Amino acid sequence: MKTKTLKDLAEALNISITTVSKALNNYPDISAATRKKVLDYAQSIDFTPNTFATSLRKQESKIVGIIIPKLAHYFFSMLLQGIIEKAEEHNYLVIVLKSNSYELEKIHIRRLLKQKVDGIFLSLAQDSHDVSHLEEIWKSGTVLIQYDRVSKIAKSSKIVINDRGAASQAVQHLIDSGKKKIAHLRGGLLPQVAIDRFIGYRKTLEKNGIEYQSDYVEICEKGNENQGYEAAKKLWARHPDIDGIFAHTDMTALGAIKFLKEQKIRIPDQVGVVGFSNWHLTALTSPSLTTINQPGKKMGKAIFTQFLKDLKALKAKENINYNTKVIKTSLIKRESS
Amino acid sequence: MKTKTLKDLAEALNISITTVSKALNNYPDISAATRKKVLDYAQSIDFTPNTFATSLRKQESKIVGIIIPKLAHYFFSMLLQGIIEKAEEHNYLVIVLKSNSYELEKIHIRRLLKQKVDGIFLSLAQDSHDVSHLEEIWKSGTVLIQYDRVSKIAKSSKIVINDRGAASQAVQHLIDSGKKKIAHLRGGLLPQVAIDRFIGYRKTLEKNGIEYQSDYVEICEKGNENQGYEAAKKLWARHPDIDGIFAHTDMTALGAIKFLKEQKIRIPDQVGVVGFSNWHLTALTSPSLTTINQPGKKMGKAIFTQFLKDLKALKAKENINYNTKVIKTSLIKRESS
Repeated sequence: MKTKTLKDLAEALNISITTVSKALNNYPDISAATRKKVLDYAQSIDFTPNTFATSLRKQESKIVGIIIPKLAHYFFSMLLQGIIEKAEEHNYLVIVLKSNSYELEKIHIRRLLKQKVDGIFLSLAQDSHDVSHLEEIWKSGTVLIQYDRVSKIAKSSKIVINDRGAASQAVQHLIDSGKKKIAHLRGGLLPQVAIDRFIGYRKTLEKNGIEYQSDYVEICEKGNENQGYEAAKKLWARHPDIDGIFAHTDMTALGAIKFLKEQKIRIPDQVGVVGFSNWHLTALTSPSLTTINQPGKKMGKAIFTQFLKDLKALKAKENINYNTKVIKTSLIKRESS
Repeated sequence: MKTKTLKDLAEALNISITTVSKALNNYPDISAATRKKVLDYAQSIDFTPNTFATSLRKQESKIVGIIIPKLAHYFFSMLLQGIIEKAEEHNYLVIVLKSNSYELEKIHIRRLLKQKVDGIFLSLAQDSHDVSHLEEIWKSGTVLIQYDRVSKIAKSSKIVINDRGAASQAVQHLIDSGKKKIAHLRGGLLPQVAIDRFIGYRKTLEKNGIEYQSDYVEICEKGNENQGYEAAKKLWARHPDIDGIFAHTDMTALGAIKFLKEQKIRIPDQVGVVGFSNWHLTALTSPSLTTINQPGKKMGKAIFTQFLKDLKALKAKENINYNTKVIKTSLIKRESS
């Protein structure tokens, strides 16, 4: 039942392992007769060439690696699904690594490069303060695709949404429904997506003649329900007249709603709430949540398609035209606004 | 910038590729002097041995593959997270493939075997009617771990929950809260988990002196919200006096709740509802959902731990003691019951 190795073939045919390997890999310095002998015997015993050996020869592993911040997270799991489905179509395998820190990100990249993956798909960790660790990827001739949290200075194709535009749409919707004192639950200070959503919030207020005030903003770095709850509590202690909340994640929005419900504040009459992402069950919460739909699966498919394009250019030794693809989002209006 | 290959080393040192390879892999037929020369030079140019070549030598890839039915699904994504975290600790990489059909399952298994993974973690597809396709795994000396939807006849270790016990707990809870006419939204006819949850439901009714009636059961094979809604509609057309629902998934439970709310049926006074899985947002739906907590992350970690155990036995050429590990579930009582 043991898998036959090159050594087994060599012994059976009484030739060297090198000759067997060269025959299987069509090296020109092997005679036609020897090659035939090896191939015939290999076929007769149903010998499957080891994928590793094949990869070693062609320098293509048909494996890609994705480094993803979270798994039990609707947007990221849909994105992963999109990548895996597209990879499946093109006969690639996908290695999945989870990281939400700069240090781990560096380790993961090294492991994937050691594995000779053909491409690495990366969303930068919250605390990734530089991009020098991405140099190893370029140097090794591996395709890098950045997605979601990207570094604008790092050279690679990027698949993103227009965070600023989406945030602007959310805030404009609150203003159009008559809200004027709109708070923002924002992400950390470093990630570009958090910065962009914040800028979208601020610019939209100003465009509508509403003065921006920094004490209407609370940082919810982890983006979870608990932080949303605590942030709402702090905001209400300072400004009990807030009439709208734009939250950078659905979870923080739901945490804020929990606080508002406890305080018997009517939603959306007194306070309108808009989240971000369109998590699976946000249509079934009470009130159901108005949110920005972030099409994860579509993004995943776009990531893989871009990878194939960049890989093709790399193999043809052409210059890669780094592309930044912006995936369209939309506002889903529900009961909370 | 190009990665150095064995060929580059051979040329630089003016010896054969085979000699370089043998020196790096500590073959005894290479002189100590040659070995030293190769290793010194390899070190001087910071040569990283190709992982594929290393794997070819040791016949261990340090890669495992998981075939998972769904990705954007709370339980399965938590399970995947558990596996990936544990694999990370032990320096393994995880290839993720998605399948929910017998045909795709067969293709995926072949791809993983071709990739020489050390282990395959499999939850059988709904329509996997036999297990002959698992033979290839055993024959190739790869460790198979079955999880969630397992075949009781296929030889491998298995990580499962006690579906029958959990279902029994859910139904007993409804009976204890005064319900007597309890309907069941069940899964398909083939998957063992669906059968077990159904048996748990039926036996618990009978144990409590309540007659089992087949027209109190509706099949919701896909387990989604829409099927739950339609099933509830059919059940109410037949039996408007139903006072409890035990649903085999949270999604079908939420679909049924949607129907009940539309009909102005009071939950839980008139009808109590219990789901299964404890999805992320079920605590925030209205009413919040009573459900069975299925600890996905714990299961994922148990899968990987069992794999390491079975792999060790396999490598030591010992007989593997196939283990069936049952992960504990619990009832989470919320507003819907």
